[in-house]
Amino acid sequence: MSDNGSGSSVEKLVIIGSGPAGWTAALYASRAQLSPLCIIGVPKQDPGPVLPGGQLMLTTEVENYPGFPHGIAGPEMMALFQKQAERFGARVMNDDVKTVAFHTDGSGPHVLTTASGKTIRAHAVIIATGATANWLGLDNELRLATTGGGVSACAVCDGALPMFRNNPVAVVGGGDTAMEEAHHVSKFASKVYVIHRRDSLRASKVMQERTLGKPNVEMIWNSQVVDVLDKKDPNSGADVIRALVLEDTNTKQRRELEVNGMFVAIGHTPATRFLRESGLEFDDKGYIDLKRRGSHTNIPGVFAAGDVADARYRQAITAAGMGCQAALDAEHWLGEHSLA
Amino acid sequence: MSDNGSGSSVEKLVIIGSGPAGWTAALYASRAQLSPLCIIGVPKQDPGPVLPGGQLMLTTEVENYPGFPHGIAGPEMMALFQKQAERFGARVMNDDVKTVAFHTDGSGPHVLTTASGKTIRAHAVIIATGATANWLGLDNELRLATTGGGVSACAVCDGALPMFRNNPVAVVGGGDTAMEEAHHVSKFASKVYVIHRRDSLRASKVMQERTLGKPNVEMIWNSQVVDVLDKKDPNSGADVIRALVLEDTNTKQRRELEVNGMFVAIGHTPATRFLRESGLEFDDKGYIDLKRRGSHTNIPGVFAAGDVADARYRQAITAAGMGCQAALDAEHWLGEHSLA
Repeated sequence: MSDNGSGSSVEKLVIIGSGPAGWTAALYASRAQLSPLCIIGVPKQDPGPVLPGGQLMLTTEVENYPGFPHGIAGPEMMALFQKQAERFGARVMNDDVKTVAFHTDGSGPHVLTTASGKTIRAHAVIIATGATANWLGLDNELRLATTGGGVSACAVCDGALPMFRNNPVAVVGGGDTAMEEAHHVSKFASKVYVIHRRDSLRASKVMQERTLGKPNVEMIWNSQVVDVLDKKDPNSGADVIRALVLEDTNTKQRRELEVNGMFVAIGHTPATRFLRESGLEFDDKGYIDLKRRGSHTNIPGVFAAGDVADARYRQAITAAGMGCQAALDAEHWLGEHSLA
Repeated sequence: MSDNGSGSSVEKLVIIGSGPAGWTAALYASRAQLSPLCIIGVPKQDPGPVLPGGQLMLTTEVENYPGFPHGIAGPEMMALFQKQAERFGARVMNDDVKTVAFHTDGSGPHVLTTASGKTIRAHAVIIATGATANWLGLDNELRLATTGGGVSACAVCDGALPMFRNNPVAVVGGGDTAMEEAHHVSKFASKVYVIHRRDSLRASKVMQERTLGKPNVEMIWNSQVVDVLDKKDPNSGADVIRALVLEDTNTKQRRELEVNGMFVAIGHTPATRFLRESGLEFDDKGYIDLKRRGSHTNIPGVFAAGDVADARYRQAITAAGMGCQAALDAEHWLGEHSLA
């Protein structure tokens, strides 16, 4: 920290968020002696569960983060990331950023206010607040999603898990992401039901044809999932999904559909609500708009990394890579401006 | 593999290279059932050592790959990456790609020829061949670089290691990278000598001022490192750097300079020699030129990831992130073209 002349100290670098992007930024920044302050959030419902550590806190088994050939539990992985960043001097604050006042002209430190009422001044800020999957909002849905019970919001992450192989699964949604998820999981599942509330898809023509042309993919139109039914897995004793209760949106008739998995693909929401009045530029989906091949935003000294700026790949490893980029960009920028 | 009608089979996806980018691409592609063929190279001198596994095979301790709070040896980390990709079905070929014939118009499979004389046809190709640090070419330099003896080509990776803290070190070079490395390591070392063959720097004005303005950084002009002297470390028994022999380029006078580390910052060379006639576009530094925020090159079905396309960040974690992007981009592209 440096003194800015007005008596209150100014952080070199504040990192907001504590998923793979945030912790990797913290690791690199702390190794570069920037002594970053990490504001990691507090647990809340928003409307689904939001936790320090991000979406991986809701992931029982991560098989695709390179370096762990036997897989690793999401919360365990995030604990390792935090430990590594703290080893090199990252400081942690259990709080949420409520409002920001960014200097869009680079004229002075940025000012952050937290939920607990603290005011923090910082020369550089990395935003790594992530995104949350949109859920249907059913009780069993969230419970099974967080306990490895066969409900997931990411087929690329989870589609290859043994529980889905050669079994019927459902994908809920009608956009490009739903088509992608269905296409991906159709390689593993015996049958993929795509459940959509309307009688037509928002997905692009090419994505529709590609996915619905697969012999094991079947559309279920005008239907809504109103309940998720579970059973005890005979081997593990854990609760796992058994069937969905579907309601026809026209006739209101209900029926059960037996599946071993449900992939909810009704979009993600980037965690940018607190940034709305910040002067930051967003893309047409509401994600932070980054400059070419880097973590710079339109505001000098404000950087972004991970899912909050990435609607496309959304993987732990890509978020971590972006976190590293943001830390190196912030270090470079602070140096250029003689602030570190 | 699919049959292309002419009797010889066509791979869906070939991945060239076996560092963090290549193995992460292989992990994601194999989990997406693309059964990628990984051409991982064979050990050679080029002029420094080039190994399957990439630059990390020459790295004794990786402290900044997130997930390993106590650090991990480079070769061990690459073995974990390979094991994880193979677990999901990646296939490995110990060979080098000698020449490529890419279809720049997307009209048919790309054709690769290997050093051992094999011909491989592939719908999609991910290039992750990395880059090699340029070395001075001194015997002790390479030996100490590969045994953790205090010689390194990456201050961002190694500058924070205990052996350099509060000790004098040397940075060799005169460009922006040399200034960056010197600036970074000046946070840890007691003294940083920047050794340059000429009497002026190629580095940009801002980078010069920023680095040479640090009180513990000193330029040594018109000097060349002609030998690296070592000693036995009293604690570990390992050979570690003790001093450099400098030769004045004008007077040819020699002298010893005592240092505990040497960072060679005379650039990197991307491993693209075999691609020169491929029709691929390169940037002005010779790196593969990627399209905005993705792994697409100018050639349909040809993707790139890692250091071969990144002169800027060059970290294991960023390369791994890019490898993941390339695999997802290749999967998407193959699907769009009904090739997978």
